[in-house]
Amino acid sequence: MVEKVVIIGAVALGPKVACRLRRINPEIDITVIDRDSLISYGGCGIPYYVGGDVAELEGLYSTIAHAKRDVPFFRNVKGFNVLTRVEALAIKRSEKKVVVRYLDEDRDGELNYDKLVIATGATPMRPPFPGSDLPKVHVVSNLHHASAIKNAIANGEVEHAVVIGAGAIGIEMAEALTDLWGIEITVVEMADQVLPQALGKDMARIVEKKLEDRGVKLLLSQKVMRINGDLDNGVHSVEIADQLGKTTETSLPCDMVILAAGVRPNSELAVAAGLAVGKNRGILVNRCMQTTDPDIFSGGDCAEFANLVSGLDCVMPLGSLANRQGRVIATNINGGNDQFPGSVGTFCIKVFDMGVAKAGLTFAQAQAAGFDPVQAVVAQSDRAHFFPDAEFMFMKLIADRKTRTVLGVEAAGPQGDAVKARVDAVAPLLKFGVDVSEICNLEVSYSPPYASAMDVVNNAGNVLDNTLNGSLRAIDTFEFIELLKQGDINVLDVRSSVQAASFVQKYPAQWINIPQDELRERFGEITEKLSGKMAEKSPLYIICGTGPRSYEAQVFLNSKGMINTRNVQGGYGMVLAIHPPLV
Amino acid sequence: MVEKVVIIGAVALGPKVACRLRRINPEIDITVIDRDSLISYGGCGIPYYVGGDVAELEGLYSTIAHAKRDVPFFRNVKGFNVLTRVEALAIKRSEKKVVVRYLDEDRDGELNYDKLVIATGATPMRPPFPGSDLPKVHVVSNLHHASAIKNAIANGEVEHAVVIGAGAIGIEMAEALTDLWGIEITVVEMADQVLPQALGKDMARIVEKKLEDRGVKLLLSQKVMRINGDLDNGVHSVEIADQLGKTTETSLPCDMVILAAGVRPNSELAVAAGLAVGKNRGILVNRCMQTTDPDIFSGGDCAEFANLVSGLDCVMPLGSLANRQGRVIATNINGGNDQFPGSVGTFCIKVFDMGVAKAGLTFAQAQAAGFDPVQAVVAQSDRAHFFPDAEFMFMKLIADRKTRTVLGVEAAGPQGDAVKARVDAVAPLLKFGVDVSEICNLEVSYSPPYASAMDVVNNAGNVLDNTLNGSLRAIDTFEFIELLKQGDINVLDVRSSVQAASFVQKYPAQWINIPQDELRERFGEITEKLSGKMAEKSPLYIICGTGPRSYEAQVFLNSKGMINTRNVQGGYGMVLAIHPPLV
Repeated sequence: MVEKVVIIGAVALGPKVACRLRRINPEIDITVIDRDSLISYGGCGIPYYVGGDVAELEGLYSTIAHAKRDVPFFRNVKGFNVLTRVEALAIKRSEKKVVVRYLDEDRDGELNYDKLVIATGATPMRPPFPGSDLPKVHVVSNLHHASAIKNAIANGEVEHAVVIGAGAIGIEMAEALTDLWGIEITVVEMADQVLPQALGKDMARIVEKKLEDRGVKLLLSQKVMRINGDLDNGVHSVEIADQLGKTTETSLPCDMVILAAGVRPNSELAVAAGLAVGKNRGILVNRCMQTTDPDIFSGGDCAEFANLVSGLDCVMPLGSLANRQGRVIATNINGGNDQFPGSVGTFCIKVFDMGVAKAGLTFAQAQAAGFDPVQAVVAQSDRAHFFPDAEFMFMKLIADRKTRTVLGVEAAGPQGDAVKARVDAVAPLLKFGVDVSEICNLEVSYSPPYASAMDVVNNAGNVLDNTLNGSLRAIDTFEFIELLKQGDINVLDVRSSVQAASFVQKYPAQWINIPQDELRERFGEITEKLSGKMAEKSPLYIICGTGPRSYEAQVFLNSKGMINTRNVQGGYGMVLAIHPPLV
Repeated sequence: MVEKVVIIGAVALGPKVACRLRRINPEIDITVIDRDSLISYGGCGIPYYVGGDVAELEGLYSTIAHAKRDVPFFRNVKGFNVLTRVEALAIKRSEKKVVVRYLDEDRDGELNYDKLVIATGATPMRPPFPGSDLPKVHVVSNLHHASAIKNAIANGEVEHAVVIGAGAIGIEMAEALTDLWGIEITVVEMADQVLPQALGKDMARIVEKKLEDRGVKLLLSQKVMRINGDLDNGVHSVEIADQLGKTTETSLPCDMVILAAGVRPNSELAVAAGLAVGKNRGILVNRCMQTTDPDIFSGGDCAEFANLVSGLDCVMPLGSLANRQGRVIATNINGGNDQFPGSVGTFCIKVFDMGVAKAGLTFAQAQAAGFDPVQAVVAQSDRAHFFPDAEFMFMKLIADRKTRTVLGVEAAGPQGDAVKARVDAVAPLLKFGVDVSEICNLEVSYSPPYASAMDVVNNAGNVLDNTLNGSLRAIDTFEFIELLKQGDINVLDVRSSVQAASFVQKYPAQWINIPQDELRERFGEITEKLSGKMAEKSPLYIICGTGPRSYEAQVFLNSKGMINTRNVQGGYGMVLAIHPPLV
């Protein structure tokens, strides 16, 4: 008989478990403890508080009805007790007790439990370079940090800031500091792209270009060596070096550093109590969200669970997952049998006026998980192209070559809800391991103001299907630009003469323009112009505005025996999304 | 060996089949015929041409690269022939011939085929009341009609228009005529709600209020008796009568009538050739899109296929389905094995500045299909509630009571892409027959600018789960308003005293206000005030801003033995969405 439930942590998962548990069981004794005084806040809202979208810090811990989510709220409204400034020191599993310290009273005590929930969250990593604990080096993880950052900025103390890490929080903070405050921002990232956990390099380039266009300085493949400063004045510069150590170290002057180098699960308490953790150091849980001790549950940022696409364990610090897991835990504590089978890794982010979303595995993650991934990238308007506010969306779909199982999806475009709509339509299918044809026929809702009759998500499926069956042979747009710069490739441009003119002028020896509607008559000119060199080694790269005409051309040339061609994925639209104009 | 393919119809499905077939087979002989001269247009764009969003008629039959999709385009670019002004008269299946008439040459001929595709589309219904064929009575089905309507308006000939039918086309045309042209519009609908095929009555009320707020006059449950006018001057009025014949006939003066009373599949040719049609008069096809003659395929608006949720056959005149089916047909004609298993009935529509979407079955459709449906309605912001541009979204989820299988979803809100995102995330699951818990845990992408941590779609799942397990007992908001007007119900309002004050004043005997955070102390007052009458017969109706607080109150009162309560679904937010303010 479950009488006493103790929950360690009162930010996202903890309160969710307690609230639902009280609703489904009016009698059970629930105690939530947290070492902090500020609780139940939307940590993911911090960049929007710093950036001014959310005016008051209170907005991040208020309900939609403007009630503050504090200790009295949980007692009076939700019917359970939260003890703040109480830290869990140890779990005595054999005695079913949590040893706690009352931080403001400088005394220890014990709490009995029948069921325990560990909701200790995660802590921002402070990498082991010198200076990461200097004043004015901030992490972004709770409301105290949020206040400190915003106060420093509002007081005019910050002109140059360095953000370390180009994951979601780094990018959101870079936007917040630039957009509202006009602070000069440099983002330093170890990987050779932004959002390495979320996007392939090509889609990441779209984000990188957006950041650069908005004045954010990006330094990729760079390692922070040390943060310089002193205890009285705080930081004054960040020293970085090329990842390979090839270049001289560079010093970036700054008066604030945002450390956004990822988080690690707070699993020490669990480890000390003998609970199993995974390779990501998260507390391992089963589908019922039980740890290796069936009387102890965990979830949220400190837990490790299955990625349903890769089959590997993962940690996924997202308030949305914490809330869903919290509901499952409450049901199960109360004797129910609810399940959280794992995550397919959905993600979205606003980057200035662009929305980016993904689900499943990136190309690199798919490879790492043992798949043989094949990808397709399409550029297409997010509404019927004749509709006035139609905007380009870029979408990538990834499947396994042999089994044709869909593994991942990524999208970016100016209308963020429309981007989210496409990714969220594919996401629910990922755990079923569906064939690409499911995406070709995916029945997304259609009306000209919101979609194309052949929607971008269906086209992504079709292009991937064509790629898998060999009729479409593509080149990554990023690679195409690099090859063009090196100067040794031939291009067939099937856009109109007007659109192609300046390209033909700039690349007279390489850039052939035959508009699509003349190709069936004039294709002979290609062989003539290339005088046999194409067939030998270098393929002919076919480009149009967004991809479909170049595919049509590729298929046609194929039928004429010209098979050594590559379709530039997403066409010149994709080129412009990741690179300054070529002419 | 397939050498000759004939395709009857060159609007949506026909060209799609031909284009893909040419891409995957450069040799095959493809002939597309159409009795019209204007082909390959986006018929669903007509309201946006009339309403001015699309400036030129050409926009509806141009590619994104501004090429007109006409006969030369298909010949030069796509590599096949389209014969316009050629009508199919008969199919001689035993001889594999189509008898055709060359309309401009007044002669007949025959086309041989190995495989035939019937893509004859649908025709707007002209109901059997007198006057439906008078001048200035327009249907909305091809570009000729579109031109005629827009020309008449642009020439200042229209001050009052009557739209007959409140389905998608009727509503889109009502918006087009009102928004740009300021024409006085009356919409007459036989059913007692708008969009009866797409929405339940409560969600339809949201659309109806929007139309009314924008000045569209709605006459529901009304039957058109006749259209009055003469051949020289066209219509001058529409006579309607109550569905039950109870009221006197009313006459609506007008100078234009838009007939939007639905469409019927053009299946006569197929019927005459002995092919099977379904109960909706559509040409029956299997998953490979073959008719009952395996050498004859069909798809698009003239075909009838499975609804994957109800299991019943349906027709679904949508350009999006036509395109997907067209691809399947092309693959199969070329010897492949692609499948279109059916539709889950997704749908979306823009209604002025509101987006509406649905998938699966409505409550009534679920009942008709033999299910025992249970529904939940939630009102919630479409972003994190602290995010500045958050807007309310209303969402309904329907499941079968016994099996808990999700059957349908409906949503409406000001940010249409966000509405579409939620419905399209549920739609892919419908054909799998998933349990409601799949929606509770549905992994939609999360970031504060685009979603709540506990997103509206997950909450819809949770509320439905709570309803199915009996912990939430709801009342339809529409019904609540009616009961309140009749004056014999008691209401517990758990909003703040300030919010509730004017309601308490207006309904002193019935409206009890105990703010949520005082309910645990003050709940005794309820019994006192009701002096026992609640428990007897009439339930206590609990209301808050959007629903969660009233649910919390219901659960709490339950634990205190007060079980005869009903939660007003969607709270006062839902009341305002479907009704003028109550005070």
